[in-house]
Amino acid sequence: MPVEPRPADQLAVSERTRLRRHAERGSHERADLDALLACGFLCHLGVLVDGAPLVVPTVYGVSADTLYLHASVASRSLTQASGQPVCVTVTQLDGVVLARSVFSHSVNYRSAMIFGVPRKVVEEAEVLAGLRCIVEQVARGQWDYARTPSRKELAATGLIALALDEVSVKSRVGPPVDDTEGDAALPVWAGVLPLVSSWGQLRPDPALAAGITPPDHVARLVGTRHGVPPVAAGERTGELSR
Amino acid sequence: MPVEPRPADQLAVSERTRLRRHAERGSHERADLDALLACGFLCHLGVLVDGAPLVVPTVYGVSADTLYLHASVASRSLTQASGQPVCVTVTQLDGVVLARSVFSHSVNYRSAMIFGVPRKVVEEAEVLAGLRCIVEQVARGQWDYARTPSRKELAATGLIALALDEVSVKSRVGPPVDDTEGDAALPVWAGVLPLVSSWGQLRPDPALAAGITPPDHVARLVGTRHGVPPVAAGERTGELSR
Repeated sequence: MPVEPRPADQLAVSERTRLRRHAERGSHERADLDALLACGFLCHLGVLVDGAPLVVPTVYGVSADTLYLHASVASRSLTQASGQPVCVTVTQLDGVVLARSVFSHSVNYRSAMIFGVPRKVVEEAEVLAGLRCIVEQVARGQWDYARTPSRKELAATGLIALALDEVSVKSRVGPPVDDTEGDAALPVWAGVLPLVSSWGQLRPDPALAAGITPPDHVARLVGTRHGVPPVAAGERTGELSR
Repeated sequence: MPVEPRPADQLAVSERTRLRRHAERGSHERADLDALLACGFLCHLGVLVDGAPLVVPTVYGVSADTLYLHASVASRSLTQASGQPVCVTVTQLDGVVLARSVFSHSVNYRSAMIFGVPRKVVEEAEVLAGLRCIVEQVARGQWDYARTPSRKELAATGLIALALDEVSVKSRVGPPVDDTEGDAALPVWAGVLPLVSSWGQLRPDPALAAGITPPDHVARLVGTRHGVPPVAAGERTGELSR
């Protein structure tokens, strides 16, 4: 789609990324996109198959202006996505917004939609680099710790690459807004019930040989937040310890 | 799409819901779909807009064989989705599968893809019933507690309905599988790093009048699991209290 010229820190604005409904919840700042993508590793890839949409959950990694998607769980979508328009959506759910009136209920979230025509990654060096991005996105430190892929494994790895160019970012934060006359005075509790995603206790492989302990980059995640910026992620989830 | 005859407890099998890759991770059992849908309220709606897929996060509710989707956050998708094929995907992320080799890394998850041609809900009684399903899915007990919608609000509520008919359910559970020769003997820790979603501490609306306390159906959620079947959800997240 045609996009307008823009400063380097702004994302492209096209007809489909222009903010419409609740424009105050939207952003075209590249920093907002980067912050959201850094929080997780799950996305939903939408692709056309036989003229109908297919939405496939998969994992992603980011390298500069490129989003890499792993497509082994989605071989049909990989085959179909390359060279065709797709939409990749990344969503972090932050809480339920409980208002005084049912109509004003909402959800706090952060979400990005990334549009474009992806390409299948075919060069071995880029498959290696893209897979590294994805593995590091999911569990930073694993690439240098686990056995790296053989050439045969790289050939069996399905990756697609999508430019981080045509993007819209949206979020809702904060308390409910009961702005219908009379609602604010109702004797009804209102506020946010946060959703907190955290890393749980490790479950070692039953086949693990005795004496092998988890590496630091994994062990230190246990009990910390997931889905939030790194500073917050380092915090222990004390609020859940009651 | 044409579907095959089936027993009542089985979901339809069509060309696009037939299990292909990792068929051992798939299910056509209606009970597995119901269990997954009961765990959450967020879905990703894939719809065609101007010939390209759009993937929109939204909330859902379930009533018997119908999935109701709220479309206010997705007015374009609502307009476009009605009468056109869509795919609604629901995903719960359960953990990261850390293997001895990078190639065997994976993600534990439960996911459903629901295909069909939705209809816009237009009758006031069904909008009311559908909205109730969605609100109760998000926060059970709220419908009878908060102010119910006026006729004007119902008219401003955008809902679409989709039959729970053509569906595939997939999941991955359990430890990594390092089945390449030599990998099992590597001195590398392997296992699952679980992702745990929980309800955090309530954040009252700053505008809340003094003396209004949260209702039981909300207060009792604090510190419990989200995204898991009801029995597990009632457990306190003690594993995070270290």
